[in-house]
This record gives sequence, C-alpha cells and structure tokens, in this order.
Amino acid sequence: MSLSPLLQNLMQGLRCLPGVGPKSAQRMTFHLLQHDRLGAKRLIEALTQALEHVGYCQYCRMLCEETVCHICSNVKRDKAKICIVESPADVMAIEASQQYRGQYFVLMGHLSPLDGIGPEDIGMELLGKRFAQGDIAEIILATNPTVEGDATAYYIADMAKPYKIQTTRIAHGVPMGGELEHVDSGTLAQALVGRRELE
Amino acid sequence: MSLSPLLQNLMQGLRCLPGVGPKSAQRMTFHLLQHDRLGAKRLIEALTQALEHVGYCQYCRMLCEETVCHICSNVKRDKAKICIVESPADVMAIEASQQYRGQYFVLMGHLSPLDGIGPEDIGMELLGKRFAQGDIAEIILATNPTVEGDATAYYIADMAKPYKIQTTRIAHGVPMGGELEHVDSGTLAQALVGRRELE
Repeated sequence: MSLSPLLQNLMQGLRCLPGVGPKSAQRMTFHLLQHDRLGAKRLIEALTQALEHVGYCQYCRMLCEETVCHICSNVKRDKAKICIVESPADVMAIEASQQYRGQYFVLMGHLSPLDGIGPEDIGMELLGKRFAQGDIAEIILATNPTVEGDATAYYIADMAKPYKIQTTRIAHGVPMGGELEHVDSGTLAQALVGRRELE
Repeated sequence: MSLSPLLQNLMQGLRCLPGVGPKSAQRMTFHLLQHDRLGAKRLIEALTQALEHVGYCQYCRMLCEETVCHICSNVKRDKAKICIVESPADVMAIEASQQYRGQYFVLMGHLSPLDGIGPEDIGMELLGKRFAQGDIAEIILATNPTVEGDATAYYIADMAKPYKIQTTRIAHGVPMGGELEHVDSGTLAQALVGRRELE
C-alpha cells in the first residue's frame, strides 16, 4: 500500500459509512484533502455535534436532539393514531408521502430471536405504556414486508388487543407506476389476496 | 423536512463527500447514529488528524504527512525516472500496476487557462528545478488522455527539451476520455510498457 498512515487511517475511517468501499473511500480521502478541507472541517463539526446531542425522542424513539421530537410535540398532528415503523428512514419515507398526519413509533429494528433481539430491544415496554394511557384509537403497522417485519407486526397486534385499539397493516401490493410484468410473484400474490371491491 | 436541525446538519455535512447525494447522506446519518457511533468517533479523529498533518511531499507534491513522501525517500526506487501524473489517485493506480519503480511528480490538476490554472498552479517551478538538477534521465508523462491532459503533457515535454531529458508518454492503451483512476491495473501495465518517445 502506497499511502501514508494518516491517509490510510482516513480511508479506513470512511469505510464505516454504508455503501463506501475501498475505492470510494480513497476517492473521498483525496477529494477532501485536495479540494474540500473546509467541507471536511464542517463534517467534523456536524459529526461531533450530532454524536454529542442526538438521542431518542422519549415518546416515539425517533432520532432527535430534543427530549421530545418535533412530530410528537406538534399539536396539529393526530395523537390518536400511531404509525409503527422499523427505522427513522421509514418515518422520512412516510412523511414524504404527505398522506399521514398522525404520530409515529420507531422500533429501531424488528424482532429477531436468532440475533437475540427481543421485545425489550424494540421498545415494547414504552409502546405498552402508550397503549395503556388509553388515548390511542388506531395503530398502523408499517414494518417491512419481511418474515421478521411480519412477525413483529403480529406481536404488536397481539399486544394491542386487550386495549381494543383498532389495528391496521399498510397495504402490500403492486407499486404505483410499476408494470405487472416486472413485479415479483410474492408481491402479486399479496396484491391478489388483498384485492378490494371497487366503489 | 421532518428531521431535527442537528440531523439535517450532519446530512448536509456528508454531502461534501463525492458521490453522496441527499438519499445516501440520510442513510449514512441514520446508520452512524443508530448503529455505529464508535465508527463516527473514529472518523472524526481520522479526519481531524489528516486535516491537521497531511500536506504535500516537497519533492513530488504527493499528499502525505511527512516532508518527503515514502516513495521519494525510498532508496530502492529509480531516481532517474519521474512519472508525471495529475492526481494522487493516479499514483495509486500506477502503483497498483506494479510496473513502475521510479519516482512521481503529482501536478494536482492540469493546465486549464479557461479555469485560470496556469503552470505555477501545477508545480512547474518545482519540476523545473528538478530538471535543472540534472539527475533525471527520463520523464514519463502519464497525464489523463484528455485535451487538458495532453496539453499539459506537451507543455512539460517542451520544458524538458533544453535539459536533453528523454520524454515519453504512456501508451494509449488507456481508453480515450477515461480517467487513470478508473483504469484496471493490467491496462495500466500495458500502457507503461508501450510508452513512446515524444517527437
């Protein structure tokens, strides 16, 4: 390897970013040091600030630097609805759809006994408390359509039963703008099972 | 935008990395804060160290934290040959071809009058001094096969003439319009072997 130790170190450091392999890391290293030292300084500052202050919302477990995130503290949002998702990125995706005005609950994962991830690791205690408070009318289960996501959804649905909370799962089917021909058979099977009467 | 200020700030900070758009930046932000805070800390440290200590080799202008880079200070390398490249990434690419045991000179760019980049910006003064010292037998021009790279090569060839230094250009086994950084090492090895005298 022909790079000096500090350059190798920086390349290695950049590898912690998802999707960054050796080639990208090298490109980033040279770019920052040759062309954008100011950007690198800003990145250090942003990282430092985020690491120091960003934690989890105490209601919904979304990443944020306040005790309560700005969705949970927004009085215009419907507090009777909770959409339950696996990750902060899912919150962003649903917000981008502009179709939902309720609150969220972020599991930060899914049940996965084989990996040692149980109910306590995905915030079930906190969620149970919110169920018990009695002000929730509906939970919308928006976990991923995977084996683990489905299992997690069923687990939460079971938890909600004693509280007589309406429990729904987001629809799974053919994506908008997609062509039937290119949709995988599992999705098509779901779409057929979940067919609805046209009004 | 549904993210708290520090998260937005971190996303913005990550955008200074080449190839990172809004979607990747968001993914990286969530990944670091959810799953890899230790990695983020190491990245801060690596960036800080690199920004503070990495400068340029005083002989070849390669990025490094020493006054003289370890290629220039390596006594096993042929000091009579200088391979002239546009960027540190090009040094890495040629080193990977394992076809070259001489030294380098890194221009950190190419002549580009329209962008206001003249000879003094690509280290021509330093290179001229090395020519004048008289211990160079051959320069290998390995600038990119682009208009600017070719122009830069001819400029340097002209500079070398009074010193009777043998001047070669790497063979155009390198695909035209491509960049050295992205060429596979076998092709680069071919290009080095097939270098020809400039008339």
